[in-house]
Amino acid sequence: MTNIAICAPATPITRDHAAALETLVAEEFPGHRVHFHEQCFARAGHFAGDDLARLTGLLECANDPAFDAVWFAKGGYGSNRIAEAAVAQMNASARSKTYVGFSDCGYLLAALYRAGIGQSAHGSMPVSARSQRGREAVRRVLRWFAGDNSGLEPSLDGVTPAAAFNLITLTMLSKTPLMPDLSGHVLMVEEVSEHLYAIDRMFFALAGTLPRLAGLRLGAITDVPENYVAFGQGEEEIARYWCDRAGIPYLGRAEIGHTPSNRVVPLGLAGPAGAA
Amino acid sequence: MTNIAICAPATPITRDHAAALETLVAEEFPGHRVHFHEQCFARAGHFAGDDLARLTGLLECANDPAFDAVWFAKGGYGSNRIAEAAVAQMNASARSKTYVGFSDCGYLLAALYRAGIGQSAHGSMPVSARSQRGREAVRRVLRWFAGDNSGLEPSLDGVTPAAAFNLITLTMLSKTPLMPDLSGHVLMVEEVSEHLYAIDRMFFALAGTLPRLAGLRLGAITDVPENYVAFGQGEEEIARYWCDRAGIPYLGRAEIGHTPSNRVVPLGLAGPAGAA
Repeated sequence: MTNIAICAPATPITRDHAAALETLVAEEFPGHRVHFHEQCFARAGHFAGDDLARLTGLLECANDPAFDAVWFAKGGYGSNRIAEAAVAQMNASARSKTYVGFSDCGYLLAALYRAGIGQSAHGSMPVSARSQRGREAVRRVLRWFAGDNSGLEPSLDGVTPAAAFNLITLTMLSKTPLMPDLSGHVLMVEEVSEHLYAIDRMFFALAGTLPRLAGLRLGAITDVPENYVAFGQGEEEIARYWCDRAGIPYLGRAEIGHTPSNRVVPLGLAGPAGAA
Repeated sequence: MTNIAICAPATPITRDHAAALETLVAEEFPGHRVHFHEQCFARAGHFAGDDLARLTGLLECANDPAFDAVWFAKGGYGSNRIAEAAVAQMNASARSKTYVGFSDCGYLLAALYRAGIGQSAHGSMPVSARSQRGREAVRRVLRWFAGDNSGLEPSLDGVTPAAAFNLITLTMLSKTPLMPDLSGHVLMVEEVSEHLYAIDRMFFALAGTLPRLAGLRLGAITDVPENYVAFGQGEEEIARYWCDRAGIPYLGRAEIGHTPSNRVVPLGLAGPAGAA
């Protein structure tokens, strides 16, 4: 049995979201237990409770030996504000857990990976359980919790360490005290709702700061807003341009993103064979 | 006489913009000459010509001993792509010039300041000469070119080095090879058309990377889009929160921004007394 604690380090979910996941788990994954921390439903302006409430919710999940995994309920924005403090207060129980989320929750995955705490993984989140299409992405994570690796990103080879991040999340955490060493990693990046010029700008920032990567893969770039003028380069041209300038091998696409086909990417060396 | 060359390192202007500035200069600043490089009107997708065209336009202005100053026509996005190459190819004439612009052109101001080339200054740009309200901001720069310091940002004391940047521009260039050492500086930041959560996120990124500043001043935060939920903190609360976390003295507001009251901020020690 995998006993999964759910908290919301960024923005809140509703009771409907929670009920949808509970139903899915009860019907299809009877070997799992999911526990929603009350903090998931708290609200303070933009956030799922203020910084202290979100930090407390996360630590109560991570530090409780009853749980095997911590699953972040939703992204949005805000996990960066508590990531450093959270990692500093994690105990021995926290160090043996699996942590899953993506998008804004990448700040936490990064901080955990840097600190060597447990196994972090990029993967879809409970908030997606309420939609028909999102549910399949959620199933991939639930299967992975059960030792079924069919939902892993297909390019993972089990030999080269990998990492997956939302582009703006990685850009913003790069060079902060949360940033792990990604030297030698295959880095996968995805983005949603950003203009192409902003994508280009983020690659500029990363090209100036990233270590020697094994290579870069471009995930889905979705919901790009229309601008007053066409940018003139497509998303893959942008990625290639900056990889060329930075001397990073461009390896093609990755199956990650704000889409139902978002796959699981364990951070580091965990590959198809023995994850979780 | 100040002989001013104008180029567009980011996005293009139109002939109407140029004519409006030429009329303003002819009528009110007969001691100045303005020369628009043809590259100002070039178009390649988002940009005022491709990278090579923009780089060439900038270098022809900067390296020509006939000009005293280089004024960037407009921001938008794109000067980051040519800034490193431009600085590397500047000659002795370029080193005695004044450079003015802001917003996206902050990448160039940063790179020039880091390289010790000429005198860079945050200031309004020729693109604003066509509107009644923008024209006054343009006049401030033209007066400053003539040695009249009445348009300088009023908190400048001539003793503490200062710098002014657009927030996302600074965030993206921070830790790239363009970034100057801002230790001991009063840093002024402004932003336009960004959500408050994005402002918060940029302060997070900067707080994790900035050197020991003398202090931070918050410029205008304008055209903030409405979000699905109120952020819960105002712009000044956000600035104070991150300054507190980073140990940076928060010094109050600055009169810079994407507004007609945008003032001139020479980068470094140039104060009210002897600029330009």
